[in-house]
Amino acid sequence: MRGVDVKQYFVGIDLGGTNMKIGLVHQNGNVIKDIEKPTLKEEGPDGVIRRMVRHTQDLAQEARVPWEEIGGVGVGLPGFLDIPGGVVKYLTNLGWRDVPIRDQLESAFGVPVKIDNDANVAALGEVWAGAGAGEQNVVLITLGTGVGGGIIAGGKLLHGARGIAGEIGHIPIDPDGVLCNCGRAGCLETIASATGMVRLVREAVEAGETSSLVLPLQNGTLSTKEIFAEAEKGDSLAKTTVERAVDALARAMAILSVVVNPSLFIIGGGVSKAGDALLKPLENHYRKQVQQNAGQGVRIELARLGNQAGFIGAAGLLARTRK
Amino acid sequence: MRGVDVKQYFVGIDLGGTNMKIGLVHQNGNVIKDIEKPTLKEEGPDGVIRRMVRHTQDLAQEARVPWEEIGGVGVGLPGFLDIPGGVVKYLTNLGWRDVPIRDQLESAFGVPVKIDNDANVAALGEVWAGAGAGEQNVVLITLGTGVGGGIIAGGKLLHGARGIAGEIGHIPIDPDGVLCNCGRAGCLETIASATGMVRLVREAVEAGETSSLVLPLQNGTLSTKEIFAEAEKGDSLAKTTVERAVDALARAMAILSVVVNPSLFIIGGGVSKAGDALLKPLENHYRKQVQQNAGQGVRIELARLGNQAGFIGAAGLLARTRK
Repeated sequence: MRGVDVKQYFVGIDLGGTNMKIGLVHQNGNVIKDIEKPTLKEEGPDGVIRRMVRHTQDLAQEARVPWEEIGGVGVGLPGFLDIPGGVVKYLTNLGWRDVPIRDQLESAFGVPVKIDNDANVAALGEVWAGAGAGEQNVVLITLGTGVGGGIIAGGKLLHGARGIAGEIGHIPIDPDGVLCNCGRAGCLETIASATGMVRLVREAVEAGETSSLVLPLQNGTLSTKEIFAEAEKGDSLAKTTVERAVDALARAMAILSVVVNPSLFIIGGGVSKAGDALLKPLENHYRKQVQQNAGQGVRIELARLGNQAGFIGAAGLLARTRK
Repeated sequence: MRGVDVKQYFVGIDLGGTNMKIGLVHQNGNVIKDIEKPTLKEEGPDGVIRRMVRHTQDLAQEARVPWEEIGGVGVGLPGFLDIPGGVVKYLTNLGWRDVPIRDQLESAFGVPVKIDNDANVAALGEVWAGAGAGEQNVVLITLGTGVGGGIIAGGKLLHGARGIAGEIGHIPIDPDGVLCNCGRAGCLETIASATGMVRLVREAVEAGETSSLVLPLQNGTLSTKEIFAEAEKGDSLAKTTVERAVDALARAMAILSVVVNPSLFIIGGGVSKAGDALLKPLENHYRKQVQQNAGQGVRIELARLGNQAGFIGAAGLLARTRK
C-alpha cells in the first residue's frame, strides 16, 4: 500500500573492484540518470564509502531530484556478505573485511540502505525491469570470467542460511574435472566460464589439435565470442569447446529445473554476447537433459539490462519491497 | 497478530494410495488425535473425498473439539498439483486427474483448505514440529521406494513456477546411469532409493559377486536395513552399495548447498531407519564434496516425526500462516 507521501526515487550502487556504477531509478524501474566512477580501492573502505556518498549526492543534484524524494539506497557487492546484518564479511576484489557498510551509509544518507551480492541484484534488476519483468520464478546465470547466479523464487531473492544460495558457478558438474578456485573439482565455472572455455581450447592445442583458434590463443587475444563464431564456421575444436560448455551449462539448468523450477532462465555476462550462437545449442542440450515436467514451458533468454542490471537491481532491493 | 477469537486447531490429511492419515493438530504443533483409514481408491475421487470429510468430522467429535474451533484443513497429496488453484492435476497412485479438491473440501468443511504435495508437507511438518524446529532454511530428503524432497527457504516452502521445486530425486547424478521412471537417466532416485540400492546389489550378484546379501536377495526379502547392517559387518558388496548410494546422495546435497544453502538437511523415509549406519558415511561424503563456505555449519539429521510428518505438515499449511 502506498501512502500519499511515498518517495518515488531509489538509488542503486553497483560496487566493483575497478568501477562503481550509481543509478537514480524511478519506482517504475526506469533509470533517471547514472554515472560510473573509479572505485579507487587503494583508498580503503572509509575512502571508497565517502566517495560513494558524494557521487550519489552529486548524481541526485544533477538530476534535480531533491533528497527528500529518495526512498532508499541499495548496494550490490562482489563477495561474501552478512546480508541481514548489512555487513561486508569479505570482498575478494577489494580486500575488505568486516565492514558495516549499511550502517555507515545509513548515517551518511539518512535513508534506509540494503546490501546484497552482485549476482543477486543483477537477477533482481532483470526481473524488475529487464528480461524477466513480471516473472516470479527466474534464474539468472552470468557467464563471465567466472559463473555467477541469482535465483528469484516466488518473486523474492533466494538467500539461504548464509547468503550463499544461487552460487550456480559452483554446482559440481564433472567430479573428475579440474580444480576450481573454490577448492572443489569440476564446478560449472571451470567449464562454462570464459576462463573455462579458453582453458579447454588451450589444453586441446597443447595436446596437438589444429584449429583456427591457435593463433588468437597464442596472441593472448582469444575471446569466447571468437570461439562461438569459429564454431558456427565449422572449426572442429571450437565446436567441441562450445558443445562441452553448453552441455555443462544445460546440465546445471536441468538440475536447477527440478530444484527450484523456474519458468525462465536469463543468461547474462560477457559470454552471452555470443547471442544465438550460444542460445540455440543451449536450448537443444537443455531439452535433452531436463526432466520433462520440470522443463515444460521454460524459456531461456538473454539478459537485457547489460551492465545496468547491477545498479537497477540494487535500487530494486528497496523499491520492490514498497509495492 | 492473533485476534481474541483465533481458532486453535487445524486438521492435516495425508492422502496416500493405500491409506489416509488424518490428524487434529494444535496451533503449537502438538498432535491432539489422529487416525488412519484405508483410501479405497476404487471409490474414485468423489467417494474418497466424501470419506475424508466424514473421517475428519468423526475425529474432531471424538477429540471433543467443536468444529468452530478449527481454523482450516490442509491436505498432502502424492502427485502433480496446481497448488495455487487447489486442483489435483494427476495423482499417479490413485489415477486421479483434474480434481478441484480444494473447492470440494471447502464446501464440505466450511473452513479454508490448502493443498500441497506430500514431500513438501513432510518438510513443513519437520520444520514446524520435528527435527527442523525453528530453522528457516531446510531441505528434507525422503529415501523410500523413490527419493522425494521438500525445500524450506526463508521459512517458506519453495514451489517454483509449476510446483515442481524440491524434486530432489530427479537431480541428475550419473548421466551414464540407468533410466529413471521420469524418462531421464541417472537420477538420484535410481541410486539412493531402496529400489536403487537393491538394484545395485542385484546387478552385482548377477555379474557373479558373492555376498551375504545373495540369499535375502533371492528370497525377495532384501531390505536396505540389511544392506546397511551387512556393510557394517564388512560384507564387501554391501559396503560398495552403501558407498555408491551415500556418494550419490552427498553429491546431490553438495549441489543443494550451493543452490539453496540450507543450514540443515533432514533425512527421512524407510531407508533412514538405518540411522547412524547411514548418517556417518553420509556426513563424511558430504564434507568431501561440499564447497567449503556452503557447507559451513550445515547439520545432517534424521527426520523425527515418522509417518506423522505428512499430516502435521498439512495442518501446518494453515496454522503456520497465522503466526
